[in-house]
Amino acid sequence: MNPIDEVSFALTLSCPDRPGIVHAVSGALVQAGGNITESQQYGSPRTAGNAGSFFMRVEVLTTAGFDALRRALEPVAETFSMEWELHPVDSAVRTLVMVSKEAHCLNELLFQQRSGTLPIVVPAIVSNHPELAELAAFYGVPFYHVPVSDKVQAEARLREIIAEQNIDLVVLARYMQILSDQLCRELSGRAINIHHSFLPSFKGARPYAQAHARGVKLIGATAHYVTGELDEGPIIEQEVIRVDHAHSAERLAQMGRAVEARTLSQAVRWHAEHRVLMDGHRTVVFD
Amino acid sequence: MNPIDEVSFALTLSCPDRPGIVHAVSGALVQAGGNITESQQYGSPRTAGNAGSFFMRVEVLTTAGFDALRRALEPVAETFSMEWELHPVDSAVRTLVMVSKEAHCLNELLFQQRSGTLPIVVPAIVSNHPELAELAAFYGVPFYHVPVSDKVQAEARLREIIAEQNIDLVVLARYMQILSDQLCRELSGRAINIHHSFLPSFKGARPYAQAHARGVKLIGATAHYVTGELDEGPIIEQEVIRVDHAHSAERLAQMGRAVEARTLSQAVRWHAEHRVLMDGHRTVVFD
Amino acid sequence: MNPIDEVSFALTLSCPDRPGIVHAVSGALVQAGGNITESQQYGSPRTAGNAGSFFMRVEVLTTAGFDALRRALEPVAETFSMEWELHPVDSAVRTLVMVSKEAHCLNELLFQQRSGTLPIVVPAIVSNHPELAELAAFYGVPFYHVPVSDKVQAEARLREIIAEQNIDLVVLARYMQILSDQLCRELSGRAINIHHSFLPSFKGARPYAQAHARGVKLIGATAHYVTGELDEGPIIEQEVIRVDHAHSAERLAQMGRAVEARTLSQAVRWHAEHRVLMDGHRTVVFD
Amino acid sequence: MNPIDEVSFALTLSCPDRPGIVHAVSGALVQAGGNITESQQYGSPRTAGNAGSFFMRVEVLTTAGFDALRRALEPVAETFSMEWELHPVDSAVRTLVMVSKEAHCLNELLFQQRSGTLPIVVPAIVSNHPELAELAAFYGVPFYHVPVSDKVQAEARLREIIAEQNIDLVVLARYMQILSDQLCRELSGRAINIHHSFLPSFKGARPYAQAHARGVKLIGATAHYVTGELDEGPIIEQEVIRVDHAHSAERLAQMGRAVEARTLSQAVRWHAEHRVLMDGHRTVVFD
Repeated sequence: MNPIDEVSFALTLSCPDRPGIVHAVSGALVQAGGNITESQQYGSPRTAGNAGSFFMRVEVLTTAGFDALRRALEPVAETFSMEWELHPVDSAVRTLVMVSKEAHCLNELLFQQRSGTLPIVVPAIVSNHPELAELAAFYGVPFYHVPVSDKVQAEARLREIIAEQNIDLVVLARYMQILSDQLCRELSGRAINIHHSFLPSFKGARPYAQAHARGVKLIGATAHYVTGELDEGPIIEQEVIRVDHAHSAERLAQMGRAVEARTLSQAVRWHAEHRVLMDGHRTVVFD
Repeated sequence: MNPIDEVSFALTLSCPDRPGIVHAVSGALVQAGGNITESQQYGSPRTAGNAGSFFMRVEVLTTAGFDALRRALEPVAETFSMEWELHPVDSAVRTLVMVSKEAHCLNELLFQQRSGTLPIVVPAIVSNHPELAELAAFYGVPFYHVPVSDKVQAEARLREIIAEQNIDLVVLARYMQILSDQLCRELSGRAINIHHSFLPSFKGARPYAQAHARGVKLIGATAHYVTGELDEGPIIEQEVIRVDHAHSAERLAQMGRAVEARTLSQAVRWHAEHRVLMDGHRTVVFD
Repeated sequence: MNPIDEVSFALTLSCPDRPGIVHAVSGALVQAGGNITESQQYGSPRTAGNAGSFFMRVEVLTTAGFDALRRALEPVAETFSMEWELHPVDSAVRTLVMVSKEAHCLNELLFQQRSGTLPIVVPAIVSNHPELAELAAFYGVPFYHVPVSDKVQAEARLREIIAEQNIDLVVLARYMQILSDQLCRELSGRAINIHHSFLPSFKGARPYAQAHARGVKLIGATAHYVTGELDEGPIIEQEVIRVDHAHSAERLAQMGRAVEARTLSQAVRWHAEHRVLMDGHRTVVFD
Repeated sequence: MNPIDEVSFALTLSCPDRPGIVHAVSGALVQAGGNITESQQYGSPRTAGNAGSFFMRVEVLTTAGFDALRRALEPVAETFSMEWELHPVDSAVRTLVMVSKEAHCLNELLFQQRSGTLPIVVPAIVSNHPELAELAAFYGVPFYHVPVSDKVQAEARLREIIAEQNIDLVVLARYMQILSDQLCRELSGRAINIHHSFLPSFKGARPYAQAHARGVKLIGATAHYVTGELDEGPIIEQEVIRVDHAHSAERLAQMGRAVEARTLSQAVRWHAEHRVLMDGHRTVVFD
């Protein structure tokens, strides 16, 4: 059994690929008394004029403490020009959820959070409509009604809440407003949206109506990081379900809700467990 | 057990929706001594200024014979302004398969046909390359090498083979040429293509490279009727498989082959069993 | 658009198979001014000494009203020795949900019921533990804490609630007690259980631990009608998800909860829409 | 681009878990001039009185050559009491396929092998029936007809072929005979069987008939290592497909063939890529 003071940390890193990275990292971890309990890596392909990039995620169990572990890793990180992060595995990610009127994604996130299956804490729910206040109250989460009659003002209020609540992650859980380019840039890599189609099919508005009109035989949902380009951000997770000719666009929307909820909650879990790294416009997910 | 002279027929029909259709059809079948063994129907929604359409597929077992059954149905078909077809269930659909160099879809169709799980007969394989002649020979199917240096001439040759071999269905099994608009029109409703993406995502050329660049987490294949608009025909069947960041575009193409083969063979089965009806640009599949 | 007094009914029936059933049923419906909007049928195979059975579900839209429709169908039902039921499509099925401590299945049923995607009403939740009272209260459903220190007494209390609340359907939503044989018989065909394995694998206790020990690569859930034989009742729906060697038995249990919740809610939906018929020990599901 | 003499090796190992393994292994690889291109690991849980086991698979690119790499690893392997294997990634696994009359699994393996998507070479097909000789001939594989009127004699012949052909892996591709306990032991860890059910459901004979009788809503296939206990060997891969009440046992068998073929070929691929390690009665699959 683990002694009480053994703590598990998740280390994620990316850097230009070259020999010796794993050995150097594992050496630093050994030096800090760490035991690697999980490790995954990926090297993006070498191309002409590009050495390729190296991505790694390690879980390490140690009594050394956060600061000692960080100090042990710093020289390695410098040597290999790494971008890197170190997080205690057990620390919940502070998550702000944005919604409009539809409850299914919010309900899933809050239920899973309370059940202990999603390593997040939700200190704030922000909505441009009042309808979901009651659900927020049931889960004991402060609900901020921020109408968007004036988008600049609404986003200013959102920034305040993010700052006050020390938010790590913003989740757009069927929030039916488009964030400004400026805000998208500020939240880069820490805002996740759920789009109710299998992207890149059916970008933009009313994807279920588009899917019905096209007569597709599967519908889906896509969880992706938010960028300034609508529905073009790096994809974290996608799922589909089978449909048929007899399903109306309304029925597709209804069936799709369950897929949206679980696709989003899977993406949030991976992000909160520090399993998602950026490879340009693509994501590396160490599942 | 069935007496030797009981035969099973598939009746498919569509018409403007109004009360009494099922009763009239079942009455005509009873009159012809038929027993309904399978029946499916679908009414497309009524909209303002549109009564909706009615679609039906019935399998009926009878000793009456094709002609008597047809005569019994004709007055009903006229009364309700039906488009309809009647086929013996056991008659194999005469199918011409078009290929280029990749064998996986052809191999699947021929293997399933020989195994008795696909109710088609393949009297001709047409290819713009010679590579798959050996596979055709193994299955005892005449192989026509029709290069497309001159598309008009090549399509003329194709029309001849279709006419000579009395072809019901043309299957483009990774045939890497685009048919002319004129030929698409001639083959309307009886030519099926497999596209190697989950349409409408990644239309056109090199869909796996597009999918890789976009970083999708699922890839798929789409079997659809051929129309003059590239990759826009009515969808019969779609399937997807899960992929991840570590899969190169080449690996996606390799993994996708199995999905293409089974998506196409499923679509061909449904068509050959007379389970696919047209509802404008969408298909009704009575699975 | 439908006039205000057109009502949709679901007719389900089964009887010995013989020619003329569809025509007779459709005739009775036409006579009652009904328009068939959905129809499905299935004939179980003829075997030596067994004519086979015929199963049918029809949705019919009519202004005739329940009683007139019933009267029109009675002679047909008698002629063909049918077992049959007629229900207004819009009437919610009165459902009692039984739970112990785990919330996921109950949460799914209540959320979907409130969202309008599950045609049930829940007048009572019965539990042998008090933990889920708060969730019940949030959804405004009376919560009955019925401990099972004495099973005879507990089941007597359950019978009272079923009678008082005029319950149509009992759902065991991870209720961790086994009902008596006598009660199983009384509730035959109107009690649905969710078992947390892909039956018939891993019957009985601790299925996730069994699944982990066996090293399966997929885990699942099974919704079935309750019978006196544990985990042997007719299966309504099953689903699986992929797992791997790294998942502990505890993690399997956690991952499995989402599958249990959606498998159960799908089964409840089909039952509540009168889409499930019994064919001996098997179910016919007209999806 | 890789110089011509860079070779990729797959290293697999397992040992009692303790700190420093990754660092020691990566050190040996660095010392041999290797660059790690893929790496996966898994630690089975520590339990009372059991330190847990550590499993690792590494792909390493090096100009050092097999022998130098092996020498570099030997001291590490000894220090940590490793069971380990080292294979050039590009060397095809010599695979003997055993069949009876059904062609679907053999056809899939041979087609994929020829397509270059399965890193095996098939020097021999052994069958207790002559039917599949023609298919073997098409793929240019020697076909041995070994009837089993006398099982001792038949297995003696099989051992000869295995020895003569220097076989690494035996695949039972719907071979309808049970191997003797003795032979199972000899082939331990290098014989893969496909069972036509989702194990542990429906062990033994006629699983599709059993599945039909039970009324399951999904059917599946299981690829597993062969052991003396029938259908009890370590599971490598499982897959399922959806079925319904209308499918006869014969139709289930027909539909199941495609699932069997792809489940088996997936398991063979993982084995041939040295991705499957044994953890007692369970497998660790580094996909």
